[in-house]
Amino acid sequence: MSDLWGQRAQAWLDRLAHCSAPGPGVTRLPFTPEHRAAIGVLTELMTQGGLTTHLDAAGTLIGRLEGPDGAPTLLMGSHQDSVREGGAYDGIMGVVLPVLALHKLRDEGVALPYAVEVLAFADEEGVRFPTALMGPRALAGTFDMAALDLRDADNVSLAQAMRDFGLTPEDLPTLRRDPATVLGWVEVHLEQGPVLESAGNPLGVVTAICGIERHVVTLTGKAAHAGTMPMHLRQDALTAAAEFVLAVEALAKKTTDLLATIGTLQIRPGVVNAVPGTVTLSLEIRAPSDAVRTKAVEALTSQLHRITASRGIAADIQRTYAQPATPCAAAMMTALGEAISGNNQPAPRLASGATHDASAMADLCPVGMIFTTCKDGISHHPDEFVPVDAMQAAIDALCRFLAGWRIT
Amino acid sequence: MSDLWGQRAQAWLDRLAHCSAPGPGVTRLPFTPEHRAAIGVLTELMTQGGLTTHLDAAGTLIGRLEGPDGAPTLLMGSHQDSVREGGAYDGIMGVVLPVLALHKLRDEGVALPYAVEVLAFADEEGVRFPTALMGPRALAGTFDMAALDLRDADNVSLAQAMRDFGLTPEDLPTLRRDPATVLGWVEVHLEQGPVLESAGNPLGVVTAICGIERHVVTLTGKAAHAGTMPMHLRQDALTAAAEFVLAVEALAKKTTDLLATIGTLQIRPGVVNAVPGTVTLSLEIRAPSDAVRTKAVEALTSQLHRITASRGIAADIQRTYAQPATPCAAAMMTALGEAISGNNQPAPRLASGATHDASAMADLCPVGMIFTTCKDGISHHPDEFVPVDAMQAAIDALCRFLAGWRIT
Repeated sequence: MSDLWGQRAQAWLDRLAHCSAPGPGVTRLPFTPEHRAAIGVLTELMTQGGLTTHLDAAGTLIGRLEGPDGAPTLLMGSHQDSVREGGAYDGIMGVVLPVLALHKLRDEGVALPYAVEVLAFADEEGVRFPTALMGPRALAGTFDMAALDLRDADNVSLAQAMRDFGLTPEDLPTLRRDPATVLGWVEVHLEQGPVLESAGNPLGVVTAICGIERHVVTLTGKAAHAGTMPMHLRQDALTAAAEFVLAVEALAKKTTDLLATIGTLQIRPGVVNAVPGTVTLSLEIRAPSDAVRTKAVEALTSQLHRITASRGIAADIQRTYAQPATPCAAAMMTALGEAISGNNQPAPRLASGATHDASAMADLCPVGMIFTTCKDGISHHPDEFVPVDAMQAAIDALCRFLAGWRIT
Repeated sequence: MSDLWGQRAQAWLDRLAHCSAPGPGVTRLPFTPEHRAAIGVLTELMTQGGLTTHLDAAGTLIGRLEGPDGAPTLLMGSHQDSVREGGAYDGIMGVVLPVLALHKLRDEGVALPYAVEVLAFADEEGVRFPTALMGPRALAGTFDMAALDLRDADNVSLAQAMRDFGLTPEDLPTLRRDPATVLGWVEVHLEQGPVLESAGNPLGVVTAICGIERHVVTLTGKAAHAGTMPMHLRQDALTAAAEFVLAVEALAKKTTDLLATIGTLQIRPGVVNAVPGTVTLSLEIRAPSDAVRTKAVEALTSQLHRITASRGIAADIQRTYAQPATPCAAAMMTALGEAISGNNQPAPRLASGATHDASAMADLCPVGMIFTTCKDGISHHPDEFVPVDAMQAAIDALCRFLAGWRIT
């Protein structure tokens, strides 16, 4: 099978990777000269693909393919921005591939019974400002205008940065779409993990974007001199924490689609010759099902109290963050799965542990996502890489999906 | 039984506690005005007790009770210095009690067949300079003159601080004692731990000062995105470390007189949403037997490699510090135990997990130590407290020991 379109995708992504601040990998923050350069390249790509482009008030570049009069619109795309010193695929690949799919369909003379827009959102990563997803939130009508006052590290407000970019932030409320006019949102993204690669699958269908909750857990024992406090009289906060760390791992390993991570742990007093008196650690739980996530936290809270009680240690667990899961639409999953399978590829299903533009678009319309494999699961790093044949497979699957998707 | 002498000890310790820099508790560093003030009070105490005093070239205040012509000398004492914001008993109580014991024997008309010297060493804690135990090392001939160049936080060298205190550091080598002239070293110290108090014993006989070794353990797994790396593909350095923490605790709990402590643990990258890639932790092992300690480290090293190998994680363990155990002399332990028992008290034996002046004196002569109970095991803290009746019991035991000790 030819990988001509996959090669074209790679060529466009190579050009787009040069739209970057200096340094390793790609650094393309919103409302910067690099963003402007990427809009230029993407406009060229979209125009060649037969799309009519414009930049909306949120800085989203939109390429539109008109459909029959009065037909609703399918929205596709992802984000143009990167993390600092990130890769050449995260986000931007999800803009390039659907444009090329539409280009390919036009070359093949296929007309669609609906309009399509491919969107390149300005900011999904939230690196420059302490907010993100303004573009999709504006479309869904969930954007909080107060975020316009948030400032970057140079003390420039989001509103000012947008004005300097030639945008009119006051117009953001006008971007809200009528759900009746929108068919759905389809996003292609690299997996950013090792699941597809380890199973040998170029593509997978995303079932849901995981809900996340984070907790701060504090274990309070009694600090003591490591030389004078005998083992049987110790109230060591760290050994209790170690039991909890293993309990968290054990539950997550035996629960399907549950991810549980203890990523930080601080000891007080934290010196070589003192029995740890206090341990503070972070607990993060992700699951595509809110019920699974909630049940896991309940079970772990019980285990925490059981472990610490048996050791004469006090325990406290405080939730600091919670974001519910975003399920993908069943019809979307089925259609995307069939489009992938029709390409003689299996269509495995997997949950997304990371957040995507689709999380915010779900407030507007049904969402579906395709994950592509990525080398060694690496993302947010200059070494990020998606093979040409996986991009070719994604374009083929998108073409099959677009040609087969019916207005219900 | 009267606790008159215990009350006297408390009164002297109250006076000595005022020889302190400002702030909570006692702060008395070597070669300071507080040290000078303590020498003044101790000189008064020693003189009242019938001792002749002088300050040696190491800043050790020595009170001497002459014995018969040509008789050897029994050395007793401890250190005058404290940690910052420490207690009123650590060290200094071991100077006050033997002086009062000699005073009591003199009141009772008991003459000893040997000379006795009570020593108040300048620096055991090593808080001001990055060295300690200069006084006993000078007596044992093990002091490294290069340490005189070490500097305190104000960039004052040890040699300069001693000169400013009126000492002549060049004379340190002349302090070396001939082992043939020394009967032994007896030191009374608070336990600094909860063992005697929890067993209801005012006094105990120390069997050995534990050997100590410290290691830095590094576990290297693979950092990953907590949302995209599934549980079964993780190489989480923290969960491996947690298994090791529990293995260390389990071995120490089942091994008599073994103390094992993990007091520090750092995670990289150390953020809430990343699987820990690397963990670095400290392992400290203490035991009164070097063989037990060495065997424990061997066993834990094996367990470390077993745990990490099963998780696909690399492990490294590096010894950063080692200090052999100092056994107390069998004859000393017997005599001190009988002296305590004769007081109608049980004479439990226990190891010292902390270092003491006796550690360095062991290079000169047989050493013995009595531990007194202390409230809640607290030491190095303003709340440090030894009950009057425990001090009375120690004075009684010392008197019985001194009167019964024979030149062998």
